[in-house]
Amino acid sequence: MRASAPLAAPSVTPPEFQPLAPAFAERVRASFARQTFMTLLGATLERVEPGKVDISVPYRADLTQQHGYLHAAVTTAIADSACGYAAMTLTSAGADVLSVEFKTNLLRPAAGERFRAEGRVLKPGRTLTVARGDVFAETEGRSTLIATMLATMIVQTGAI
Amino acid sequence: MRASAPLAAPSVTPPEFQPLAPAFAERVRASFARQTFMTLLGATLERVEPGKVDISVPYRADLTQQHGYLHAAVTTAIADSACGYAAMTLTSAGADVLSVEFKTNLLRPAAGERFRAEGRVLKPGRTLTVARGDVFAETEGRSTLIATMLATMIVQTGAI
Amino acid sequence: MRASAPLAAPSVTPPEFQPLAPAFAERVRASFARQTFMTLLGATLERVEPGKVDISVPYRADLTQQHGYLHAAVTTAIADSACGYAAMTLTSAGADVLSVEFKTNLLRPAAGERFRAEGRVLKPGRTLTVARGDVFAETEGRSTLIATMLATMIVQTGAI
Amino acid sequence: MRASAPLAAPSVTPPEFQPLAPAFAERVRASFARQTFMTLLGATLERVEPGKVDISVPYRADLTQQHGYLHAAVTTAIADSACGYAAMTLTSAGADVLSVEFKTNLLRPAAGERFRAEGRVLKPGRTLTVARGDVFAETEGRSTLIATMLATMIVQTGAI
Repeated sequence: MRASAPLAAPSVTPPEFQPLAPAFAERVRASFARQTFMTLLGATLERVEPGKVDISVPYRADLTQQHGYLHAAVTTAIADSACGYAAMTLTSAGADVLSVEFKTNLLRPAAGERFRAEGRVLKPGRTLTVARGDVFAETEGRSTLIATMLATMIVQTGAI
Repeated sequence: MRASAPLAAPSVTPPEFQPLAPAFAERVRASFARQTFMTLLGATLERVEPGKVDISVPYRADLTQQHGYLHAAVTTAIADSACGYAAMTLTSAGADVLSVEFKTNLLRPAAGERFRAEGRVLKPGRTLTVARGDVFAETEGRSTLIATMLATMIVQTGAI
Repeated sequence: MRASAPLAAPSVTPPEFQPLAPAFAERVRASFARQTFMTLLGATLERVEPGKVDISVPYRADLTQQHGYLHAAVTTAIADSACGYAAMTLTSAGADVLSVEFKTNLLRPAAGERFRAEGRVLKPGRTLTVARGDVFAETEGRSTLIATMLATMIVQTGAI
Repeated sequence: MRASAPLAAPSVTPPEFQPLAPAFAERVRASFARQTFMTLLGATLERVEPGKVDISVPYRADLTQQHGYLHAAVTTAIADSACGYAAMTLTSAGADVLSVEFKTNLLRPAAGERFRAEGRVLKPGRTLTVARGDVFAETEGRSTLIATMLATMIVQTGAI
């Protein structure tokens, strides 16, 4: 399912990364399960690969802003978590990831049946990892880019 | 209730603005009531003055990230809405406000009994308004700056 | 010339756009020639296509920060101008483009013989256009992503 | 010299900080002197206090964009350096400061005789420091806020 031109998103081919720790997907899934806010939103973890994490949330009437579109904060929530977990796939086994900052551009009204955030690591680092998050609205098999995020994550080893 | 030095937030003295439309507070409250996502979060609209809107949310266990702190997206949600409604206090009667983009810096762990976002207009405009949002965690009467947002809003007149 | 894995930049395939005005490249080149700051930097306009503009600047010892790397503001300068002119390629004939805001992440030390900013429109609009700018350092035929920008531009028709 | 209402900037009262190293001002001045790009711009270091650094640049015809206003990248250059050096005033003696990322909102046309960036630390840290940079245009004794920056800096101890 791809977006249609000329409103298509860039089809990003991100760099290929090697995970430092073999059980990265289990760690991501365990951490995601502890994010109670993701449960409240009805968000689910989809793709978990080195440097790449997708998170989806179906439309729900209690997730909207004043016009009935998905609230920008929900768009941001799944983009932020997708970026953070994309960063976590590349850390060592004991490390955790926290958001330092992020910027979101809201490109189109968030109208759709389902929303998918694609978090992709642009530059991993021992201390800081930079990731991009693109959020797509999906309706009747069509996918439209509605928002894009640029985020900085900090990798913390040892107790938080 | 002010934050304690040296972790204090800047005590911002924002510019004084004159509202264009007398019923600005009613319009803001009516629009806020339509944001179902604010209801889901348990957020409430506090101060509504020309160029200044505060929104609060009490801590709740289903609003957290993996360590039990308030999820960055909840922090962002109240900051974004506070900035947007601060912008709306200065628009003409028929206008609406939508977020173009925002950037959030997460400064400290979002631990507290209650969280308050203060949206303040830096520069109003016919088309674009720029606002700052500071988010404070409140615990036992102390207030600590935990995040700051810089946001761009678009003012739309006529049908959305 | 492409960056090598795993430090590669995403190879973005941006959407294809149709220019509104046939002489877009002449307008971009004329406006660029009036940016005296680009002349001061020694920057040159390379690619000018619908939605895509590249700007290059060779390394010079008077463009550096305290460690001898290219100053972040020079990186930002060529990225901002590349994003703005990428937006201008898609406007109507009389329109001008101004930067509303931009965010730059500095990913690696800006060391190289030459630096190239690639501005790409993500979402064109009648009022606002959002663009991404990737900046690459080029050394001995290798290209490394050193910074990425996410920018919002306003399209102004009529006199500025 | 203050800006006039209602276009005034917030008059920020930043937190008071204690420097970790006594010779902070000398270190800042020595590092600034090595930024050849500041020399090229004609920028000068003004205030250097704990958590606060101001940098000024006079208008010059070769620092402009296509309409003769100061180029956004020059505005960004002095804001970025002011934020970075504000962070450096609070580090230990051997530490250096590099920009991780910054976001600039351009609020008004950069017209004036002189431009002054005020960098103020919002949250210092051992690894990351967050600062705000406000840029004012000064003309005939009046000062107008033209841009605001929110920036993240990394503190590096040991060799770069």
